[in-house]
Amino acid sequence: MALMTGAEYIESLRKLNTKVYMFGERIENWVDHPMIRPSINCVAATYDAAADAAESGLMIATSNLTGHKINRFSNIHMSTDDLCKKVKMQRMLGQKTASCFQRCVGMDSFNAVYSTTFEIDEKYGTDYHERFKKFLIMVQDNDLTVDGAMTDPKGDRSKSPSQQANPDVFVHVKEVREDGIVVRGAKAHQTGSVNSHWHIFMPTIAMKPEDKDFALCFACPSDADGLFMVYGRQSCDTRKLEEGADIDLGNKQFGGQEALVILDDVFIPNEYIFMNGETEFAGMLVERFAGYHRQSYGGCKVGVGDVIIGAAALAAEYNGCEKASAVKDKLVEMTHLNETMYCCGIACSADGHATKAGNYEINLLEANVCKQNVTRFPYEIARLAEDIAGGLMVTMPSEKDFKSDLVVGKNGETLGEFCTSLLGTKPEVDTMDRMRILRFLENICLGSSAVGYRTESLHGAGSPQAQRIMIARQGNMEGKQKLAKKIAGIEDK
Amino acid sequence: MALMTGAEYIESLRKLNTKVYMFGERIENWVDHPMIRPSINCVAATYDAAADAAESGLMIATSNLTGHKINRFSNIHMSTDDLCKKVKMQRMLGQKTASCFQRCVGMDSFNAVYSTTFEIDEKYGTDYHERFKKFLIMVQDNDLTVDGAMTDPKGDRSKSPSQQANPDVFVHVKEVREDGIVVRGAKAHQTGSVNSHWHIFMPTIAMKPEDKDFALCFACPSDADGLFMVYGRQSCDTRKLEEGADIDLGNKQFGGQEALVILDDVFIPNEYIFMNGETEFAGMLVERFAGYHRQSYGGCKVGVGDVIIGAAALAAEYNGCEKASAVKDKLVEMTHLNETMYCCGIACSADGHATKAGNYEINLLEANVCKQNVTRFPYEIARLAEDIAGGLMVTMPSEKDFKSDLVVGKNGETLGEFCTSLLGTKPEVDTMDRMRILRFLENICLGSSAVGYRTESLHGAGSPQAQRIMIARQGNMEGKQKLAKKIAGIEDK
Amino acid sequence: MALMTGAEYIESLRKLNTKVYMFGERIENWVDHPMIRPSINCVAATYDAAADAAESGLMIATSNLTGHKINRFSNIHMSTDDLCKKVKMQRMLGQKTASCFQRCVGMDSFNAVYSTTFEIDEKYGTDYHERFKKFLIMVQDNDLTVDGAMTDPKGDRSKSPSQQANPDVFVHVKEVREDGIVVRGAKAHQTGSVNSHWHIFMPTIAMKPEDKDFALCFACPSDADGLFMVYGRQSCDTRKLEEGADIDLGNKQFGGQEALVILDDVFIPNEYIFMNGETEFAGMLVERFAGYHRQSYGGCKVGVGDVIIGAAALAAEYNGCEKASAVKDKLVEMTHLNETMYCCGIACSADGHATKAGNYEINLLEANVCKQNVTRFPYEIARLAEDIAGGLMVTMPSEKDFKSDLVVGKNGETLGEFCTSLLGTKPEVDTMDRMRILRFLENICLGSSAVGYRTESLHGAGSPQAQRIMIARQGNMEGKQKLAKKIAGIEDK
Amino acid sequence: MALMTGAEYIESLRKLNTKVYMFGERIENWVDHPMIRPSINCVAATYDAAADAAESGLMIATSNLTGHKINRFSNIHMSTDDLCKKVKMQRMLGQKTASCFQRCVGMDSFNAVYSTTFEIDEKYGTDYHERFKKFLIMVQDNDLTVDGAMTDPKGDRSKSPSQQANPDVFVHVKEVREDGIVVRGAKAHQTGSVNSHWHIFMPTIAMKPEDKDFALCFACPSDADGLFMVYGRQSCDTRKLEEGADIDLGNKQFGGQEALVILDDVFIPNEYIFMNGETEFAGMLVERFAGYHRQSYGGCKVGVGDVIIGAAALAAEYNGCEKASAVKDKLVEMTHLNETMYCCGIACSADGHATKAGNYEINLLEANVCKQNVTRFPYEIARLAEDIAGGLMVTMPSEKDFKSDLVVGKNGETLGEFCTSLLGTKPEVDTMDRMRILRFLENICLGSSAVGYRTESLHGAGSPQAQRIMIARQGNMEGKQKLAKKIAGIEDK
Repeated sequence: MALMTGAEYIESLRKLNTKVYMFGERIENWVDHPMIRPSINCVAATYDAAADAAESGLMIATSNLTGHKINRFSNIHMSTDDLCKKVKMQRMLGQKTASCFQRCVGMDSFNAVYSTTFEIDEKYGTDYHERFKKFLIMVQDNDLTVDGAMTDPKGDRSKSPSQQANPDVFVHVKEVREDGIVVRGAKAHQTGSVNSHWHIFMPTIAMKPEDKDFALCFACPSDADGLFMVYGRQSCDTRKLEEGADIDLGNKQFGGQEALVILDDVFIPNEYIFMNGETEFAGMLVERFAGYHRQSYGGCKVGVGDVIIGAAALAAEYNGCEKASAVKDKLVEMTHLNETMYCCGIACSADGHATKAGNYEINLLEANVCKQNVTRFPYEIARLAEDIAGGLMVTMPSEKDFKSDLVVGKNGETLGEFCTSLLGTKPEVDTMDRMRILRFLENICLGSSAVGYRTESLHGAGSPQAQRIMIARQGNMEGKQKLAKKIAGIEDK
Repeated sequence: MALMTGAEYIESLRKLNTKVYMFGERIENWVDHPMIRPSINCVAATYDAAADAAESGLMIATSNLTGHKINRFSNIHMSTDDLCKKVKMQRMLGQKTASCFQRCVGMDSFNAVYSTTFEIDEKYGTDYHERFKKFLIMVQDNDLTVDGAMTDPKGDRSKSPSQQANPDVFVHVKEVREDGIVVRGAKAHQTGSVNSHWHIFMPTIAMKPEDKDFALCFACPSDADGLFMVYGRQSCDTRKLEEGADIDLGNKQFGGQEALVILDDVFIPNEYIFMNGETEFAGMLVERFAGYHRQSYGGCKVGVGDVIIGAAALAAEYNGCEKASAVKDKLVEMTHLNETMYCCGIACSADGHATKAGNYEINLLEANVCKQNVTRFPYEIARLAEDIAGGLMVTMPSEKDFKSDLVVGKNGETLGEFCTSLLGTKPEVDTMDRMRILRFLENICLGSSAVGYRTESLHGAGSPQAQRIMIARQGNMEGKQKLAKKIAGIEDK
Repeated sequence: MALMTGAEYIESLRKLNTKVYMFGERIENWVDHPMIRPSINCVAATYDAAADAAESGLMIATSNLTGHKINRFSNIHMSTDDLCKKVKMQRMLGQKTASCFQRCVGMDSFNAVYSTTFEIDEKYGTDYHERFKKFLIMVQDNDLTVDGAMTDPKGDRSKSPSQQANPDVFVHVKEVREDGIVVRGAKAHQTGSVNSHWHIFMPTIAMKPEDKDFALCFACPSDADGLFMVYGRQSCDTRKLEEGADIDLGNKQFGGQEALVILDDVFIPNEYIFMNGETEFAGMLVERFAGYHRQSYGGCKVGVGDVIIGAAALAAEYNGCEKASAVKDKLVEMTHLNETMYCCGIACSADGHATKAGNYEINLLEANVCKQNVTRFPYEIARLAEDIAGGLMVTMPSEKDFKSDLVVGKNGETLGEFCTSLLGTKPEVDTMDRMRILRFLENICLGSSAVGYRTESLHGAGSPQAQRIMIARQGNMEGKQKLAKKIAGIEDK
Repeated sequence: MALMTGAEYIESLRKLNTKVYMFGERIENWVDHPMIRPSINCVAATYDAAADAAESGLMIATSNLTGHKINRFSNIHMSTDDLCKKVKMQRMLGQKTASCFQRCVGMDSFNAVYSTTFEIDEKYGTDYHERFKKFLIMVQDNDLTVDGAMTDPKGDRSKSPSQQANPDVFVHVKEVREDGIVVRGAKAHQTGSVNSHWHIFMPTIAMKPEDKDFALCFACPSDADGLFMVYGRQSCDTRKLEEGADIDLGNKQFGGQEALVILDDVFIPNEYIFMNGETEFAGMLVERFAGYHRQSYGGCKVGVGDVIIGAAALAAEYNGCEKASAVKDKLVEMTHLNETMYCCGIACSADGHATKAGNYEINLLEANVCKQNVTRFPYEIARLAEDIAGGLMVTMPSEKDFKSDLVVGKNGETLGEFCTSLLGTKPEVDTMDRMRILRFLENICLGSSAVGYRTESLHGAGSPQAQRIMIARQGNMEGKQKLAKKIAGIEDK
């Protein structure tokens, strides 16, 4: 079976009966909706890159299940080299889209479910691992995009799933049938949900025996009966609806996507169920998925950072201040922070190890350290970008003003001429190029891409505190205390 | 003459023939334009507060020129107590509006022009100071809002005004007449320009003799012939145009404003000219205006910070995680950073001193230190607010989804019911209140208020590097070296 | 009665029978001990400055009790101007000594005990306030140095005073007699204890009824029967014992002092007891003393910072890299951080208020914010100083090597000649001056002064977490939540 | 030939006629000198570890030149796995010694000289590479420690080597003979110089044709005629001379070493010359050595960090505050920062590549990013350690006080009993253990180990600005600008 191109991927979405709501209405032709399409283009870029000679080295992998050539986004990582290539692929795609390309959650769920099902089977004699492999071969051979759906709305954070007033705030089994189960609930902030062919649902936290009904993992087509999405609003989302919008969008072609996915009594056949009530494995699955996904941020956001650094350098050049030592030093700092995140992404990959199932897992401590840095550095990179860009980034006239031929001057100048002339800097710089780069930075720092670059960096793959808990757990404090005792001459009792 | 109320102020704007362009068109009724009105409400708050018994102690001052009761925004500061009260007033208004109330630039220009004209006259025997006092009495007695306009578009940053390819990138004298001058050019990112009755134009940098035509300070009505504004686009600006918008706005009532002000051969009568060619005083005027304005940020942004901290605390409470030590610690950190900025605002005021003209100037070093902190801490405060808010801040459905009665569920549930139920947290919390506070934080961190809270904190009153230059200049390094030599036993040659 | 000079102060110490232990021995002539003397010189500087015409404006105050001219270190602050002058005096003395001059703890205890005794009396009809005023007049008129002793050793931090296995880890009443009490226990890390004429002992934490015996405040002469000190070791302390030491000391004349003060059944007559069992006032006294003392750090450490910045600038100049933009920028950053701390010191003073007793208390929130910054910025200032100084600061030969006339070269060069020649930079710089400034910085960053500049900045007047607790308590979170609700349109129930 | 044990290594030093000066005198038996011995023990640990079964996997490598088993410290890295193992070995030794074990500079010089000589030969037809391999085989087979000496004293930083008033501030050829050269000059802050069998001297900066005499690389026995060292003083160095010192040392067994190495007309035979006048290769050698050495810091300082974190955790436990959330959070932060450095060390290794000579070089950008982080994070880790330790770390009595049996109490208690009892915390904690851990932390934060952990982290392998220059150079800004142009829709001209 051949890998899809970006165009084929987009066509494949049209065949689905995915149900999407936005602004209180159902969106019928969501594939061509101007607010949604940039996010589809982003996923399409993961297909096109696989067909690109220069990038296929990173993009194409060989399935450990079938030996087929597959898109790396559906690969099971079988070595530390695979793990490193994953990060490099993500950086490359971040550089191309300056956005979230959404397909990582699926890849990360495949690898986490692969090893976890193996260990559940080992304990309980279940056949989840085989089921999952069968499902995955279908995904690989059809080159599908899958949403790895983890985060439940969670209701009252001080209560466990089974203690919630409203059980629907965690996905759960509503009914057990011979041939499958009926599930109910929702997953919040699902990246790329609408653009996925399938979903894999996973639990969102470690669970105790009383939360048995919530310890669930299963796959489901995105257009299953009872499954629908409510599209999340983002900063500046409706700019994309403005007629003729180009410059003001900052990034016309690409963008991210977040949705609330609702499961309204959806039937899941047994063959797609990969965990059902084995509560003690919920934490393992969460930890592994989160680990892989925290590694991911050491690639994708670094790629976006590369574009931001380049844009800031251009903005300085257009202004005529690219030689100022303060500007150069800020670009160095941005680069330093960006590469520090990348180092963490690479390190947790190079320090990976084989699971019982044979696939490779990242170094958990380092992956959490990676993501913890990603909750901080993009904010500082964005601040420095805003610094270099200058205030015009947020005060400049609209694209329509620059293009207006309304006569407003005493000597017959148009509004567009005034704007272009007054906000020009030097003869060799086209004012419109300057505006383009400033609007790009506005989009990254405050606009819809800011959701992806900043807030998603903070909360995606788990909020900062989640990583700190893992760092505490993985830090081997007892071992460190022993080292200190030895040096200080304290007997270790 | 009585002080205006907010309502009277708004009515007074209708009487002006201010020319405003936006999206390539002239906006006729800009006073009621939904994108502009919140910024007008903000200025109106400075009038209403003066009429409020609880706040008039901060808001009302006594003119040193007339003895009349005036709004502090048109006051000449005559003591360190005045300087401190200014900052406290700004914090209080920031708390009320969570926005930029725009009237500070005028107040700060009054105080800078007041002392600088005195010193120009002292050297050149001109009568700028008297002219200015006459103008100011008019402003005080009519309780006017004035835009203190400093920042020229500046063209190529590596060239001086007289070296620019296009002279219009700095405001300059185009023609000298017996009764006045004709000026041309523009001022970029003018805060509250549209909402001001008058403008005071000032030079934007220190100048050399060859830049004589650019060393200009003058006042001008906002609706003068040849003067017009192009409204700057901001993040999420058009959300305000959405029908029925309320929750999604985050801050429905208030907002900021930035515009490009264009002077298309505007005639300025002699009586409104306060500097004309005295190049060596351009730097003094810039330094003083910037100094006062850098003090201002130690008040207004702190007030906004208070609201953000409160909002983050509410978001945590609505989530059920207000007792988590990590959350509490983040709130402490936000408070600490916020109060540090305030301390700098207060300190530069308490350490103020009388100018030759008799009015009080802030401590320049401390005012620059104040603003330097404001270029950093709001970014961290916003990051921590996003952290506490959680990802839902940027992924949640629109207000219209929450209010939709479209039936979408198998059991007849509406889209609104699904959203409300699934994103609820605990019985005592109204889901809509939770959404309100998250949308407020979205607006502050990424939306139109982010322009005011983040980017304006960075670049308003001068970009970070401008403060560093002043800190270097004011730091008395030679004195510090002497101290070190004495302690280290080095002879001071 | 006349104020003492520094020399008179030093003589006055000889008359005391203070018992000091160090390295396991009693030090008889501690006044002339080379390890102790620099700390005495520091206190002496507070006397000499009062006699210095240029500084007496800051140093001399008028007693609110007697109208006498007194050293500000024994003053009760009666206005915000007094509070500001206190901070300015501390900065000036920090600039002169680059060390801790130790006399602040006394001053801060006077002001805290003054207002707290007034309020205890108000509630209980006791006469503590009158007793204390009588004591203070004696201190003022004799120009004494007093150690304000607060910090008990505290034993197990998870237990209260009355729960400790060893009651002596908190100062307590061992026996009540008609004419006074016998007290037992200790105070750890007492700054300037040895150099003080008297001590005021205060409780170290808020207490509950069961801790009655520990809720104690009293004054005691430093050479009382049963009171003795154990001198704390500090980094590089014994360098001061090296024969002929000068350059290697970094700061030959001045230094700090920390000691463990032990109360071995000391009798305290009733007239010197200012609290005895009024547990609910222990917290107030702690909070007030800590507040004043946290303000102090916004003065003294800033003065030391001034010297460090000057020294770093000199080091750069001696190296020939004073024009490098990276070096200049680091000096700006150091200045910025240093002045930020000062701003906090000034702000909490200018925002002070009268207590019930009539003396002025600083703004508690701002004083805690001040100290919190002092737990961070000196570390970064020191790091930047080390950066500018270069590695030679910690690798260079000893003073004895530079001065050695041992012939070691093939051409008869001495060891001193080699060192001087090879570590010279340019003809106009004396290599010994370069070494002096580097040793000064070594002393500040790593040597005995590092204890005062770094660790004392961290823990003095309470460790960072103590300030965070106060910031949380003083931050008025409820008020901030109300502000947020109002803006966001949430009904305040 | 067998690898040496630590004991054999120490004996081998006795056979050398190394000339060491300290405090103005020559130290004859420097091997047993208490101030020097801890640094020798540290190097010895690199020998002992090779003999340790558990560690030999990291310690032993196979020579690419001879196939012999060698200590990794003399290995030429032939793969990314070798590069990663180097970092892991360094972390392990940092954990064991909490000090600088000094042998890395040699290893890093071997790898830099290996590839650079290959490329010089390629251009000039010289035989430096063969000479060097011969030398290296001797080093490997005799298991020698070699000082890689790079940093010249540098004189006036604004002048090049040939412009200096005193040519000796850069090592240079003084005389050319048929069989070799006579060199003169010095190397400052040489880590482990005294403890090395041989030295490799390298140039310290990129050079221009006029600096031909300074573009020199050669090997030389440590006891060559005319070569001598002046031992650098460090914080608390003489504590090691105190009789019976144990606890007060903090780290009794191990320590670092810095010396000034002087070349007083030393003759170098041709076979040991590896560069002589090929100025355009000076920069390459510096860059490569610095690159390898910046990688090293991502290992060794992380190992020390592990001990510090463990010590802080113990201090908290001894205090009874190990469960406080603020304490736990600080330990997490320390771990996070420490692991971030490690990630950078691993990443630049895993991303390494083969040089023309065939050995592996680290990724230069990432190695510089690694070191840049090491100039920051250890300072924050140390600050947090001081925070957790509490003030007692710098105020506590000396070891001699704790051990004193001088009777000082009314009831016959000794000084030691008072100290032990009052500074105890809970029954299960031996007060002496508490003191040990605090003295260890004092030593790391302020004492002689602080030189190694803090200042060496700042300046070792190049000061921060050196890394920033490399980051700017390696950051591919043009490529990043192209990415931004593409996304923003700007034509790339």
